[in-house]
Formats: sequence, C-alpha cells, structure tokens
Amino acid sequence: MKPTRTTLKIGELATGQDLELPIFQFKPDSISGPSVYIQANVHGAEVQGNAVIYQLMRLLENSELLGRITLVPLANPLGINQKSGEFTLGRFDPITGVNWNREYFDHKVDVAAWYVKHSHLADGELIQAYRAMLLEQCQMRLTNEWGVTTGHQQAVMLQQMGHQADIVLDLHTGPKSCKHLYCPEYDAQAAALFSIPYTLLIPNEFGGAMDESIFCPWWQLSEHLKAQGREFAVPVSAFTLELGSQERIDLEDALVDAQGIMAYLSHRGVIGERVAPAKMQRFGCYLKDYKKYHAPIGGMVEYLAQVGQPLEVGQPLANILRLDLYGSDQVLSSLAVTLDCVPILHFASASVYQGTELYKVMTNVFEF
Amino acid sequence: MKPTRTTLKIGELATGQDLELPIFQFKPDSISGPSVYIQANVHGAEVQGNAVIYQLMRLLENSELLGRITLVPLANPLGINQKSGEFTLGRFDPITGVNWNREYFDHKVDVAAWYVKHSHLADGELIQAYRAMLLEQCQMRLTNEWGVTTGHQQAVMLQQMGHQADIVLDLHTGPKSCKHLYCPEYDAQAAALFSIPYTLLIPNEFGGAMDESIFCPWWQLSEHLKAQGREFAVPVSAFTLELGSQERIDLEDALVDAQGIMAYLSHRGVIGERVAPAKMQRFGCYLKDYKKYHAPIGGMVEYLAQVGQPLEVGQPLANILRLDLYGSDQVLSSLAVTLDCVPILHFASASVYQGTELYKVMTNVFEF
Amino acid sequence: MKPTRTTLKIGELATGQDLELPIFQFKPDSISGPSVYIQANVHGAEVQGNAVIYQLMRLLENSELLGRITLVPLANPLGINQKSGEFTLGRFDPITGVNWNREYFDHKVDVAAWYVKHSHLADGELIQAYRAMLLEQCQMRLTNEWGVTTGHQQAVMLQQMGHQADIVLDLHTGPKSCKHLYCPEYDAQAAALFSIPYTLLIPNEFGGAMDESIFCPWWQLSEHLKAQGREFAVPVSAFTLELGSQERIDLEDALVDAQGIMAYLSHRGVIGERVAPAKMQRFGCYLKDYKKYHAPIGGMVEYLAQVGQPLEVGQPLANILRLDLYGSDQVLSSLAVTLDCVPILHFASASVYQGTELYKVMTNVFEF
Amino acid sequence: MKPTRTTLKIGELATGQDLELPIFQFKPDSISGPSVYIQANVHGAEVQGNAVIYQLMRLLENSELLGRITLVPLANPLGINQKSGEFTLGRFDPITGVNWNREYFDHKVDVAAWYVKHSHLADGELIQAYRAMLLEQCQMRLTNEWGVTTGHQQAVMLQQMGHQADIVLDLHTGPKSCKHLYCPEYDAQAAALFSIPYTLLIPNEFGGAMDESIFCPWWQLSEHLKAQGREFAVPVSAFTLELGSQERIDLEDALVDAQGIMAYLSHRGVIGERVAPAKMQRFGCYLKDYKKYHAPIGGMVEYLAQVGQPLEVGQPLANILRLDLYGSDQVLSSLAVTLDCVPILHFASASVYQGTELYKVMTNVFEF
Repeated sequence: MKPTRTTLKIGELATGQDLELPIFQFKPDSISGPSVYIQANVHGAEVQGNAVIYQLMRLLENSELLGRITLVPLANPLGINQKSGEFTLGRFDPITGVNWNREYFDHKVDVAAWYVKHSHLADGELIQAYRAMLLEQCQMRLTNEWGVTTGHQQAVMLQQMGHQADIVLDLHTGPKSCKHLYCPEYDAQAAALFSIPYTLLIPNEFGGAMDESIFCPWWQLSEHLKAQGREFAVPVSAFTLELGSQERIDLEDALVDAQGIMAYLSHRGVIGERVAPAKMQRFGCYLKDYKKYHAPIGGMVEYLAQVGQPLEVGQPLANILRLDLYGSDQVLSSLAVTLDCVPILHFASASVYQGTELYKVMTNVFEF
Repeated sequence: MKPTRTTLKIGELATGQDLELPIFQFKPDSISGPSVYIQANVHGAEVQGNAVIYQLMRLLENSELLGRITLVPLANPLGINQKSGEFTLGRFDPITGVNWNREYFDHKVDVAAWYVKHSHLADGELIQAYRAMLLEQCQMRLTNEWGVTTGHQQAVMLQQMGHQADIVLDLHTGPKSCKHLYCPEYDAQAAALFSIPYTLLIPNEFGGAMDESIFCPWWQLSEHLKAQGREFAVPVSAFTLELGSQERIDLEDALVDAQGIMAYLSHRGVIGERVAPAKMQRFGCYLKDYKKYHAPIGGMVEYLAQVGQPLEVGQPLANILRLDLYGSDQVLSSLAVTLDCVPILHFASASVYQGTELYKVMTNVFEF
Repeated sequence: MKPTRTTLKIGELATGQDLELPIFQFKPDSISGPSVYIQANVHGAEVQGNAVIYQLMRLLENSELLGRITLVPLANPLGINQKSGEFTLGRFDPITGVNWNREYFDHKVDVAAWYVKHSHLADGELIQAYRAMLLEQCQMRLTNEWGVTTGHQQAVMLQQMGHQADIVLDLHTGPKSCKHLYCPEYDAQAAALFSIPYTLLIPNEFGGAMDESIFCPWWQLSEHLKAQGREFAVPVSAFTLELGSQERIDLEDALVDAQGIMAYLSHRGVIGERVAPAKMQRFGCYLKDYKKYHAPIGGMVEYLAQVGQPLEVGQPLANILRLDLYGSDQVLSSLAVTLDCVPILHFASASVYQGTELYKVMTNVFEF
Repeated sequence: MKPTRTTLKIGELATGQDLELPIFQFKPDSISGPSVYIQANVHGAEVQGNAVIYQLMRLLENSELLGRITLVPLANPLGINQKSGEFTLGRFDPITGVNWNREYFDHKVDVAAWYVKHSHLADGELIQAYRAMLLEQCQMRLTNEWGVTTGHQQAVMLQQMGHQADIVLDLHTGPKSCKHLYCPEYDAQAAALFSIPYTLLIPNEFGGAMDESIFCPWWQLSEHLKAQGREFAVPVSAFTLELGSQERIDLEDALVDAQGIMAYLSHRGVIGERVAPAKMQRFGCYLKDYKKYHAPIGGMVEYLAQVGQPLEVGQPLANILRLDLYGSDQVLSSLAVTLDCVPILHFASASVYQGTELYKVMTNVFEF
C-alpha cells in the first residue's frame, strides 16, 4: 500500500511564499488498530528523523496495516531552511528566540469542571468528547482575533494532527548525542520496544513540547478519574525519540530506528505482522535525575566522555584549554564527574562561554 | 559628589576574556533615604538607557544625596557586542534563544512557611530577614554544583544587586516605540512621577523579568501578611522604563528622562532637593488589556499608526504590500483596528512573516 | 495595459521548496523604444524598491508604452525571508558571507580578440552579436559541470534578464540614507532625470554589482572601438538607485520615485507621453571622492549629521558615548569632519565596534 | 626556555571592551636561524590550531632554539566569541560578511619602480629595505585618516607581525576535512616535511589570505629580479595548514601536527635538534585542479565519500534525500564523481540549498 500525499499550509514568508508541509498518509480500508501520527525535523538541524520516516514508509508499504498512519517529515520549513554560517540555525524562531519545541498550546483544561458535565459518558464516548474539546481549543487558538505568532501557529497545527491520533512520535536528535527516548512515566513499558538504549521517564508537567501537549491533558483526566474512583487508563501515547546527533543523515542507521518503530507499532496492533523488539540492554532514569553540566569556565573544549558510555565518579568529562593562560597551571583544566552517570549528549561546538551547557548526563540509572 | 567606579565579572567568553560590568556608586556619608539600583542595556540593542544614566549621573553629581545609588550601564556585554548584520542581536542568548530579560531567578518563596518562623519580628527586622533570605537564595543558585547557564548567571548577579536596594529601575526600550512604564499595580501612583506618558499596570506574576524578580517576593509577603491581618506595605519599588526606540542614542531626550527619574527620586526622598514631575498627560491600562496584533499575512509593511497616538475603531494600523499578487485586489491589504486603542510600539522591520508581532496596543486606556 | 505575470525558479531550499521570482512584463504590440529591466530588493532589507515598482506599474498601466518593460520585485527570496532577530539579515549569503550584490558574473571579455572577428558588422549587428555572446557566457556559467553557488546562480539569472534590455535599473536603499544614484560616467546626463538629489559617477570597473555587470562589457567595447577610430556610443544604460533607508515602506514616497523613473523613461522614449523631471537641485561627486568614515573607537553612537545635509569642515558628525569611561574626558567623544562634505548615509545601529563604517560622505561635491 | 607573554590590542567592542591577542615569544639569546610567526584560529570555529600551538610550545620549551618564534593563538577574538545557535559563526565579519581570511592588505607593490631605486643593494640589504617598505605600507594603512574596518585593522596588525618573520604558519581547519596544506609553488619541497598528507600548490596570486599577503610581494620581487637576470630566491616562506575539521579539539592529534611543525622548523634550522619528518605518503595537486562540487538540488545530504580517501570515476559522493518527493524516483539522488579525485573536505551541515558547496576535491593528484 502506498501513502497518499497532501500539503498543509502553515504560514507565509515575507515574500508571500507559503510555508507548506508534505503530509503522507496510509489509510487502510479496514481499521482495527490505533491511529498514529509521526513528525520529524521540528528543530531545523535535527534531520535524521526524515531518513527514519523514509525507511519507515518503505517498510510500511510492505506491511499489513491495521490503523491509519500519518507522517509529517520536514515539519518546520522555516527552521530547516534557516542557515547561519554553515550550520542550520533551526532550534528557535530567529525573531523571537522561542524554541520551536516549546510553542505548543497549553490546554490548561479544568478537568474537574469538564468531568462534572461528562461523567455520565462511557469510556469510549468520554474519549471522543475530550478529544473533540482539545481539538476545538486548538482551533479557537488558531482563530484568535489578534492573530497568533508564527511559531505558535505552526505548532498548534501540528498539535491538531497529533490530537487526532492515538500514538504520537516526535522525531528529534540531540546535538552530539546517543539515542534516547522521552517517555511519560505511565507508559514506561514502551521503553523496551524501540531500538533506543536510554530512556528518560518524564512526569505529568507541561513544558511546551509536542509529546507533553498530547499526553498531559489525558494524563490529567486519567488522574482525576482515578481520584474519583473510576479506572481510566491514559488512552494516548506520545514520545519524543532522540535519534542520535543533529546535522547527520545516515540511511542505514535510519533503518535500525524504523525497525524499532515497527516493533512498537506491532506491539500496539497498528501493523499485522509480529515484529520483535531489538535485543539490547535498555537503561533509564527519571527526569529529575537528568543533569545538565555547565562549563565552569570559558575556553576550548576537548570532549573526552563518549555519549552512551557509563562514567564512574572521578572519570573525566572534558578538558578545557585556556591558551591565554599558558605558563600557569590553569592552561588545561580537566573536568571530572562527581558521581556515577551516563553522558547522553554534549554541546555541538568545541568552544564555550562560562555557563554553556556542556553535557547532559543520566544519574541514578537503572536497567529496564 | 563623584561616583566611585568598580567592576564586576559576570562571565567568561570562549577566548577566556572576562565579561565585566562597570558599576558606578554614589555613597553619601549620611544616609536618610532609600537606596537605589539602576541598570541599562540588558537587551543589547536598547542603548538609550546608557545615555539616561549618563545624564542622570551628571545631575546627581550636583545634587544633595540622601540615599545610596548604584548604576550599572552596559549591563549585558555579551548581548551588546553581538551584531548580526548591521543590527545588534541582543534580545536573546545567541546559543539558547532565551530572552535575556526572562533569565532572572524565580524565588518561589513558601511565604507561609517562612512567616511562621518570622512572625515575631517587627517590620524592620522582618524586612532585613526576608532580604537576607532572598540574597542567600540567589547566592545558592549561583553556586549550584552543576553550574548555571551564562544568561542565568548574569541575571542573578544583577538581581543580587537589585535586592540590596529599595528602588530598582531597569532601563529598556521598545523596538519602534513611544515611552512607557511597566509599573506594579500596588505602586500605581509612581506613574505620575516619571516623564513617561503611558503606563502598564502589572499584576503579581513572575514571568522572568528583572522588575518582577525584585517585587514579586515582597508583594507575596505583603499579601500574606494582609491575609493574616497584619498591615505591611510592599517595601520595595521596581519598574521597567521603556524609553523610546532601540538602536538610538539621543542625549537631549536622555536628559528629559533623567529629569523624570530625578522627580521620582525626589518624591521618594533619595535626593534632597524638590524636583517636580514634568507636567504632561499620563495614561495607562492594565496588562490584560495590552494586546499584541500579529500579522495576518506575510508581506511588506507600511506602518501607518504612530506610536503614542490614539486610534479610533476602524482607523488603519498598517498596509501590507504583496507584490507577488499584483493584479489581484490582495496586492495591498489595509489593516484596521477593531476597537479604540493606543499603539505603543511596532515591529522593527518593514517585512514580516505571517504571525509576526506587528503592533502592541493599549486598550481600555484611562488617564491617571 | 496590464502586465503579464510569470514565475522564474532561481533555486531550491533544503526542504526542497523552490525559490521563485515573480516577473511582470509589459509587452506593447508595437515597439519603437528601448526595452527596460527593473529589479528590486536584491538586498533583503532594502524593500522600498518593491513599493516603487508597485507605483510604477500603476503608472505604466495608464501610459502609452513604446518599449518592453520587465519588472522583478522581491528579487532575492532567500535574502528577504532571512531574519536574524527583528531585522532582515539580507545583505549577504548567510552561509558564505558574500554580498548578494557582488555575485554577478565578470565577463572579462577579450574585447580586442572578439572585435577582430566582428569588425565587419554594422552597429546594429555588432550590438546583436555582442549581446548574444554575453548571454551565452551567462548560460555557460549556469551550466558549469561542477555547479554554481546559490548566490551566483540567482545573480546570473537576473543578469541574463538584464542583458536582454537596453535600460537596467537596480533598486536598492542605503542603511539610513538619503536618495542617491550610482551612475556610470558615460551616462552622467541621466542624473538630471530621476528624482534623486545626489549622484555618484562611477568608472568602468567591475566590482561585482548588477549595474556594472551590465554596462562594463559594453563600455569596454565602446572604448576599444574608439581606440580603433570607430565611434560607438555605449548602447546600454544601467543604474543603481538608492531610494532612502532600508526597512521602510512608504507608498507616497514610492510614487515620487516612480515618477522620477517615468521622467527617465519618457526622456528615453520608452513611454509616449512627456514626463518632465522633477525640479530640484542635483549634486554629485566622483566615486573616488566618496569616503567611508570608520569609527575611531568602539561605543554608543549619537548620529548628529543628517544625511543629505551638507557639512562644513569642523562640524560634528556624531558623538560616541563611552559610559565605561565616565569620570574621564573620554566619556563623550565628538567626531567632526575634516573637510566640507555631504553625509549620504550612516550605519544602521547605534552602537559600533572600532572600525565600523559610521558614515559615507561625498567630498568635492559639484552641482549638475 | 619559557616563552614570554605579551598582549596586543587589535580593536574595541561596542561596550568599550578591548579586543586583545595573547602573544607568546621565544627569544633565544643567540640567534642563528630564521624567525618564525605562527597564528591560529583566525576563523572562529577552527580551534584545533590552538591545541597545536599548545603542544608546540611544550615541545619548544625543551628544544634548543636558534631563531625567534612568535605564536599568536586565539587570533580573532571577535570571531571566536561569536556564536549563532550552538556553533561558532566565526568565518566572516558578522556585520559585513567579509571572510576574516580575505581582509589582509594587498601591497600592490610597483616592483619595477621600487627596484630601480634599490638595485644597487646586496641581497641582505635588499631584503631589509623591502621588508621595511612592506611594514611601512601596513603602518600607513592602519593610520588612514578615514579609519579602517574592524576586520582590516585586525588583519593588517597580524600581517605586520608576519612580515617581521622569515617563516609564517597560519593554522586553519576545513569544515569536515582531512589535513591539507596550502603551499606556494616555489616552496613545494616543504610539502614533504609537515605531517600532512595532501598539499595544494598555489600560484602567485593575491586573494586576500594571510599566507599570500606575506609571500606574494616577495615572490613578485624574486620574479622581477629573475627577469632582470639576478638570481634571488624568495626569502620568506608562508603556509596555511588545514589541520582537520572545525569545532574540534584533540590534544593527541595536535601533538602529531606539532611534531610535523618541529620537523619543518628543524629542516629550516630554527631548532637545533634533528627532527625527521613523519614517514607517510604525501599527495598533491595544483590549485587549478582543486574543484568545488556544488549541490545540484536542495535537500538532506548523506555524505558518503570519506575525506582523504581517493575516489574513482563513478563512485558515489553523497545521497540527497528529498522526502517531499517520496513516491517518485527523485526521492533519493545519488551523486557520483565524473573523474578520479580525492575528496578533501565537505560541507558541515547535513542539509543544503541548491548550489551549496558540497565537497572540495583534488583532481589530477600526484605523489610527492
């Protein structure tokens, strides 16, 4: 089965040119499984997700599909096309500085009030009504009489597509990074399915990202119902997959990640065939134990710690070279970790200001 | 009396060069009035505050001083020195995109718990203890074992200086803007003292800005005590002064604003002589009535509405020229306001994406 | 008569999106006058030329046309759509730094060798053959087996359109600037026709700009023929019009410049009616007398000299405020001109590094 | 022997802060060998040269020195400290776009005229007089009454230091690059001494780079004298060393290159001990055979060809993924080389516009 291709206009440039997204959809005739929404490249330099979507679509074309699948590669044309020097300056809106992945709409649903009016509904109807409310809120946001910002418009239009699915995958990468997964705590078992060695378990807090914008309202509903004595599992799944480093296209590695996604889709009943998860060790930590290590001084950085390789207390992270101080013992500073951890990603540039986020490391790591 | 000049290191660049602030202080021998902290140019392109500090220091040199006055011009060296093309790209951290004026520390004081332990103190002691706690929190933030970001370090070091004063003025400008004042609602009478025609009355909500970082913790304390039946006026004042447009130095106009600040300082007893406020009409609105008008389409913009000039419903804000549509009736779109308002500022560039913040306007404007 | 609208693809972005130019053409049935090519906005922030083309097309629609007229507004979509902060970073290729108006092809015609083969041709045939050669060179450049750069491709495609016309107008603006005209010395009489008070007379040297790329090869041919004893006036005219300041759309002022262009076109027989040039004083200087004044120190700049207003020796250009030096006599430096001159433009930002080009001034100015 | 450290001011920022260079000098008491000038990091992201200078100074401290050695790491503080997003935007002046390594002064010596006046001098005196003239020209350039640009001032101050030495090494890197050397044709034997596998032999043409600014005037003198029948070897050596990829500090690899430089210095008699060149195959081509391959379409790039690994005709360089074209056969384009070559460097980002310089390759490669 081939996907259909449509186009969605999500903005206009100063020249009047439309900003458009390509949208690919697999719509099986008979649907028995959940629906899926997958997007990539919301941060302009994080291109590998496109390669994963490419490989995934090739796999899906030869699969038995039980649920509808929508794929949006190249999801941020403004960010993708914005170079500054030789690199893509696609992490934030060039005018406002706002991170493209912090622009999603915060529903701030008054769950208690909403539930008072809808408590009579059975689970299926409840889900339908809640989803309709979320979609309507997005639509109202987009039609605000004072307009909405460029980034918010794009984000909320993506969010609308996400709300229409049961499973949402947002494909990102780190700067120089090993693969890792942002996974909500209620959905921790999913960490064993993708081809991703490290998982961050995240709580029910909205910080502006796509995955949170999808699951937070449902998680709040679920928790409210539980407090009311009604069992109601969160009916949606949403994850951010960080698929290695930015500014890199690797088709072979993309196939590995596409197969990992197939394993997850198989587990969820989106595809008919049985795809087993890759055999690999999988580790994780809670978001509160995910630490940012900031450069204690400015200088030139030799990154020593490899991402994805555990470090023991006292082992070196990086050297900082300060050639202006040659002749003193401060010319070369060795930075060591003060507790056991796993470096997950490091900064992209080899020179830093004091305070630049040098490494992000997992602490209190456990095996799944 | 001449100010003393000292230097504060607030960071290090990649070359190892220190980022330093010049600090000027007037310390009268005998102190009977409140202390003052004034900073300028936290946004790199908003340079006029430096000119105001220049004129103000010249006035203060010939004044009778009753309180200590600290002045920090050029408060963001990294932002000020960062050009991108012919303009200063100084609104946000070039690495992270975070607005330099959203980097201040959110104290999140548990006021109730704190007050339980300190309710026995008289007002003066209470103020002293609370201030010490705020300063200690800042210091702990700066000495975090994982380090702090470049922008946060700078901000919290400025905030520390602010917390040591009774009056804090943060000198900014808009993009293309008339003069306006951000004033907390509890301090509304101050709006009548500066040489500023428009005032925004802001609520007790921390959004990351300097003024809020100073007054919010005290305002919360004041409200908590009031709820406990103890009268306790907010003992600090903090304002953001938006002194016209960015990328502009005008020494004559700077003298006007320096005199406005002198009028405020005179009213507060910081200087001995009586300086009357400028006679002028002053207007304002609540922050909730301060509206952002976003470009409904992309294109080339002719800004028609003058900042600081009231508009009636139906009057034009701007034309958007879309030459790609020449021959259709969409080649020129006239944008009109749908209610009475006063445009306070508009975007700096003459071309916009769909969704660019075109104008900010005051609605429900009242006279002070 | 209405213009036809076509589209020219001049590149592709990373998302695959085409970079396209809108092209408007007036093609009268009967042609007796020269053909014209007009483009605008090759530098992204220099938008006013679009407004001039808008007004000009409206005038042309109601005129008797004797020659073909091609108009290309929004001629650099990549540059126009590239913001960095609130301003358009459209002066140079964001990847390479190359000025978009220095990307045109240098024909480096070996005029002597070419003429040996074509000296038998009458003037009309000679022009036809030379033009064909120039166009073929452009085409060969574009089809280079190793490819061409993004900026060069765009430039050479514009240049091809220019070579097909007898008259070429490239509409630019300065940063903060009065109106001025770049006019080749051989065509000095044209300076009296446009509504532009200041003219720079430029020699026969190719520096990479559009106007030079058009007229230099012909001027070289003319000079070679003159050296051979054959009178041959340069058969093309090409000018760069600098229509005030960047980041500004002013439809009323655009009409003034459109009328100035109509006066020139009338004089050249492109339109049937007689349009008299605006009555105004017009001044100029030779390019060698056009001086760049660089900031002797870094600091905050108060621009004192008005563009377009003559200065006498010793009059002030600008103040530089150095608040870090408050207390010394270097806190405020007044920069004065050391000879009579007319400031034509100044830098766009109010803060400068040492060495920033602060003002450009005409010296040895004469009246036309 | 320890180097002395001094500081040279080469500019001022908008805050008034000085731009300063650290300068390290080894000045042996007794001098019998040539003098050396080495600089690094003129392009802000090309940091590895600093690590090489670090290792080299450590080696020199334990060597017998016969000539004076001056080392300037961190030679472009403005460029090094300028981030745009996570990367260093240090290749060109952020205001003007001019490449920092195209800012050096073009002496344009009228060699014939100069030699007429100095032909009576013996070689040693001739060298002294010519060098004095070059230095004086630089000094006059710097003291131009209209000022000089920020980049030109920095470059010419570096150039002055270079002109005082007999050997000049400018340490750069490519974007993603193998090591290669820019070597003037007259000095081709030097290619066998450094630890660098690929060498570009460059002609006597000034394009604005440091090495050219040093050797071109002397090479012109040498050629003029040869034409006059006087043998006169070019008395200076100047090279640009491209030491791998930008945004990378590797201290171990820096030691390899420092040892390569020691081998060259040993060969030239700057150090007393005999340091043999590394045993390795060395290849090269003429600059005219160094080709830039531009992206024929826009899209996402998978770089397949490894830098430094020879390719045969027909082998693939890269894939370009165009996910917007999924479903057509243009979704993945394989780019192959049309002749035997060695890819030396490729673009840093994984997404490109049409026309982006994708690879630079050596053709007609020969072994030294």
